[in-house]
Amino acid sequence: MHASELVEEYPLVGIDTDALEATQTMAKLRLPGLVVTEGEGRPYAVLPASQVVKFVVPQYIQADPSLAAVIDEPAADRIAAQLAGKKVRDLLPTHPAELPTVAADDTVLELAAVMARMRSPLVAVVSDDRIIGVVTASRLLSLISAS
Amino acid sequence: MHASELVEEYPLVGIDTDALEATQTMAKLRLPGLVVTEGEGRPYAVLPASQVVKFVVPQYIQADPSLAAVIDEPAADRIAAQLAGKKVRDLLPTHPAELPTVAADDTVLELAAVMARMRSPLVAVVSDDRIIGVVTASRLLSLISAS
Repeated sequence: MHASELVEEYPLVGIDTDALEATQTMAKLRLPGLVVTEGEGRPYAVLPASQVVKFVVPQYIQADPSLAAVIDEPAADRIAAQLAGKKVRDLLPTHPAELPTVAADDTVLELAAVMARMRSPLVAVVSDDRIIGVVTASRLLSLISAS
Repeated sequence: MHASELVEEYPLVGIDTDALEATQTMAKLRLPGLVVTEGEGRPYAVLPASQVVKFVVPQYIQADPSLAAVIDEPAADRIAAQLAGKKVRDLLPTHPAELPTVAADDTVLELAAVMARMRSPLVAVVSDDRIIGVVTASRLLSLISAS
């Protein structure tokens, strides 16, 4: 079985996608992260949901979470406002998590090896320098543990 | 709003849960990881799906994924066999990822601050030293990005 036969539907966002839109996609589908592409679908990076949380929570509160206890709840609105007008590229850290890739005709075991080595929750399957789909660790485990 | 109002249903496994059973739970629910407890539901660690993949892929293939290309496909069966008779504690790395926790009456902003600081995809909500639920980063984002 080849990697291309394993791919599942998974939303891709571009580095210039609207940040709020990308966040809503991640939230609605309850995804732990998004795959970010550049140009014509070239693999670029992974944007973990926790990174978006990191982006919207003010720095001084991250440094001392106990401060959050004394802030009025409407702060949540101000937090959401931080995403307005931003793009996905603004949310990514300076050194974003590398997106592991395999070729469409690589075997499932090769894909598993890449995922294991990079401790990645997902691997992008690439053909002609474009992402044709994504395989998550849980998808791979369903294949292994069902047999 | 308090952390306890945000918790979602999320499967917990004990450190002595059967490894194959835990893997199947993760696979069936397409979860990126499981929350591991010890004793009477005390928070212990996070078991990422990628860690299970790391456990089942032979070391020499992780070191050189290109070797995987020359291995017969039935290897997948031998891989699944590695989970047989094992427990969740066997799958965890020597230094498992810390499970961030907040108290049931902590605010949502405190929870977000802890998640951001630890770059964690989830936070366990604890009361009387027992996990009463879990909040994922995507759940938190759905709260923020919907407003």
